[in-house]
Amino acid sequence: MAKEITPRATDYARWYTDVVLKSQLADYSPVKGCMVIRPNGYALWENIQKTLDGMFKETGHVNAYFPLFIPKSFLAKEAEHVEGFAKECAIVTHTRLKATGESGHMSVVPDPESALEEELVVRPTSETIIYSMFAKWVQSWRDLPILLNQWANIVRWEMRTRLFLRTTEFLWQEGHTAHATHEEAEEEVLRILEIYRRFAEDYLALPVLTGVKTEKEKFAGALRTYAIEALMQDGRALQAGTSHDLGQNFARAFDVRFQAASGGWEHVWNTSWGVSTRLIGAVVMAHGDDDGLILPPRIAPLQAVIVPIWRNDEQQRETVAAAREIEGRLRRAGVSVRVDDRDSVNPGFKYAEWELRGVPLRLELGPRDVASGSVMAVSRLDRSKTPLPWDGLGESVPALLEAIQGALFERARQRREETTRGVDSWEAFVAGVESGGFLLARHCGGTECEVQIQDETKATVRVIPPDRPDDPGPCVRCGAPAAGRVVFARAY
Amino acid sequence: MAKEITPRATDYARWYTDVVLKSQLADYSPVKGCMVIRPNGYALWENIQKTLDGMFKETGHVNAYFPLFIPKSFLAKEAEHVEGFAKECAIVTHTRLKATGESGHMSVVPDPESALEEELVVRPTSETIIYSMFAKWVQSWRDLPILLNQWANIVRWEMRTRLFLRTTEFLWQEGHTAHATHEEAEEEVLRILEIYRRFAEDYLALPVLTGVKTEKEKFAGALRTYAIEALMQDGRALQAGTSHDLGQNFARAFDVRFQAASGGWEHVWNTSWGVSTRLIGAVVMAHGDDDGLILPPRIAPLQAVIVPIWRNDEQQRETVAAAREIEGRLRRAGVSVRVDDRDSVNPGFKYAEWELRGVPLRLELGPRDVASGSVMAVSRLDRSKTPLPWDGLGESVPALLEAIQGALFERARQRREETTRGVDSWEAFVAGVESGGFLLARHCGGTECEVQIQDETKATVRVIPPDRPDDPGPCVRCGAPAAGRVVFARAY
Repeated sequence: MAKEITPRATDYARWYTDVVLKSQLADYSPVKGCMVIRPNGYALWENIQKTLDGMFKETGHVNAYFPLFIPKSFLAKEAEHVEGFAKECAIVTHTRLKATGESGHMSVVPDPESALEEELVVRPTSETIIYSMFAKWVQSWRDLPILLNQWANIVRWEMRTRLFLRTTEFLWQEGHTAHATHEEAEEEVLRILEIYRRFAEDYLALPVLTGVKTEKEKFAGALRTYAIEALMQDGRALQAGTSHDLGQNFARAFDVRFQAASGGWEHVWNTSWGVSTRLIGAVVMAHGDDDGLILPPRIAPLQAVIVPIWRNDEQQRETVAAAREIEGRLRRAGVSVRVDDRDSVNPGFKYAEWELRGVPLRLELGPRDVASGSVMAVSRLDRSKTPLPWDGLGESVPALLEAIQGALFERARQRREETTRGVDSWEAFVAGVESGGFLLARHCGGTECEVQIQDETKATVRVIPPDRPDDPGPCVRCGAPAAGRVVFARAY
Repeated sequence: MAKEITPRATDYARWYTDVVLKSQLADYSPVKGCMVIRPNGYALWENIQKTLDGMFKETGHVNAYFPLFIPKSFLAKEAEHVEGFAKECAIVTHTRLKATGESGHMSVVPDPESALEEELVVRPTSETIIYSMFAKWVQSWRDLPILLNQWANIVRWEMRTRLFLRTTEFLWQEGHTAHATHEEAEEEVLRILEIYRRFAEDYLALPVLTGVKTEKEKFAGALRTYAIEALMQDGRALQAGTSHDLGQNFARAFDVRFQAASGGWEHVWNTSWGVSTRLIGAVVMAHGDDDGLILPPRIAPLQAVIVPIWRNDEQQRETVAAAREIEGRLRRAGVSVRVDDRDSVNPGFKYAEWELRGVPLRLELGPRDVASGSVMAVSRLDRSKTPLPWDGLGESVPALLEAIQGALFERARQRREETTRGVDSWEAFVAGVESGGFLLARHCGGTECEVQIQDETKATVRVIPPDRPDDPGPCVRCGAPAAGRVVFARAY
């Protein structure tokens, strides 16, 4: 396997695509904008799912499944919502194909007689179909709260796509809840935001900023959108998860009402929130290097690989047997591990392959290691070597993995700290956007001014930080009074 | 909660729908033919997924994800395949909605300018899109076998739908493999068939027949289809899973070739196999009674419910505290259990509700039970009561659950044995179909004769049993010579 990964410094975008394709996380499909998630990528998604699903269930949420198709009239019921999604949706219009043309040159076309009375939209998000069901299920305050989550595929007809980060179809989870009061809904929105932050930082090793989106950047139909924002190695931001306070907008559109304990009828308060397979792209971009992926041990499908090294048959038998023995011990200690005992390729080839795939720890095991009862652990992070005695591997390997997890986070955090700074003048802002990172700049809060800034620099407001200190001054772009600073960056 | 379940004897179809809706497994959605899988139903699906996914992984399969959309020309590449699916597929033709009409009477329509160059079909199954990727990934015999599985949603535009059993959209898993030889492919097909049989019998408590489908009933594009067939309480059969030997049909259509160890280029041999959310319908229909669901303990999301019983505050404190203590012990023993300590409803109401939901075991706990250090276990199967001392609950409750699991299977097996019989005359066949069950009848093997039988009786060949004994005689319908007997029944 030739590596041929474009170095990050040469072309970061090509580096990313090279890593995703060569590590076999994903591949392009014959359908424009849709990707195939290959087993290496899907195993990561399974680990992400398992962890997040556990967090949702611990906080009282249950899973359900709603239809893929949404009648177009449903989308149109919430004005901002349809405005936000109308331009990028797949529309089903027919239900039969019929053959046409001569035998030998046959093709199939939609059968005009199978045209649907009302066209269906492939879900770009499920607020409308889900809240139409809530209207049926909710009668009294006793039916609240409803705390649902759905793992599903989503389609948004994107013009410019990029593996994992922006694809026409993607996988995600979408939470949908209904509450009796706005206060409870807001608590839920923040509870989920905190779950997302904790998951990103503790599992993906991605330090994130949390905060509120501006009116311009909020979800179409929400009262208020919260988000977690990560920073990639090229200095661009990536929105990694959103949690929306929907107010009563959808409850009014779909007439989701309940009889309150006091007797009157009121509309429910909804929240929705989601993270997607985009997180996999974030992990690649935040941690990878010119040799390939670097996966955080807590979500790596394979945490360690044991490579036995031999020069003759006897050494092969000996090192492979020892490798199997160590594999067994590590598995019992809960480590996901395998032995690479292929004899068709040499150890150097194996090292490169497992580095490309981002396995956090390599355990090299030669005849001398067998003789001394030890194994050489090599970190994917920096190739630092640690000889480990066989005794206690069940503790030393998990400890090394945790150390790598911590170091990955710390490295990403330092990168972010180094590229996060306040800017006050427009010149410094423009130069700052070019060099990347998070810019803390005062903004007047006007949407027109925000659009202007994006048009001129491609930078957007990523979040308004929570509890930001009063720091009044002139807006970085228009000079109008601003109460404090917001976070700007170019984003994926 | 009024029960109002139509008794099975009055109207089996209405009984089924009543049970599914009232136990909140699923609900009708606003989209024709699509259902909402509610949390009670989805939790069952999660347990089915977890168990099957483990079985697939143990046998070397890995999960991946392929696009929802299939270019229509792909479907058309395999002649039988497109013939089989063209009449029931959702077709995406446009990618934007635009507003039309006056303000106040606005509606949205597909924007003609967004018409796709090539229409896309929402996957009715994924052979074509997956094997087009295999063509890209397979070069040499070293790349084989490929053993993939996908958990996904599927759309088939069905005219007559029924919750879980036949819906326009459903959830399933579809395995797709590629092998160097036909022999290996056939081994895989049978390995999976055995996994399906084992899962159906050991987890769903569904005794199944296994065998081969006739030419008429096989999968569109397969060389040969194997299936597991279960029998419902009304005497109708239900196909619960299929495993297809696809031969080289799709490999030829998509040019999936590999260089053999001997040097020449050969087409791969494919298999595909699947089970779906239909299994949930099978569990309802096979085990439920006039009081509601009966769930097999091994897949029941909730295996036991503890109902404390009190007449005054002191008793309430006492019984609820004991219930919590028992809940903790059972959880530590791996039992999925909860305490129903609501004081808004009485114990009788709770019993009915948990019976409706099919919880296998109810543990009643009154003041006298607390005094004697025991609890009364009531089986959902037959309401038989077993007093259990608190000591040893961690063993006695799992043992009772296993006994219920076994009894459920045995009851279903006996029902099947009682309604499985040989018939030789056409008159006996017609009468037999009316009364239900599996009929073992000789058949000539002709597709025309098979169609005739279906037209006249609505019965179809469910399977040709494997290793059936030679039992020559005249075809039950046309009198032509038949080598042996096949299994007929009316089916869902």
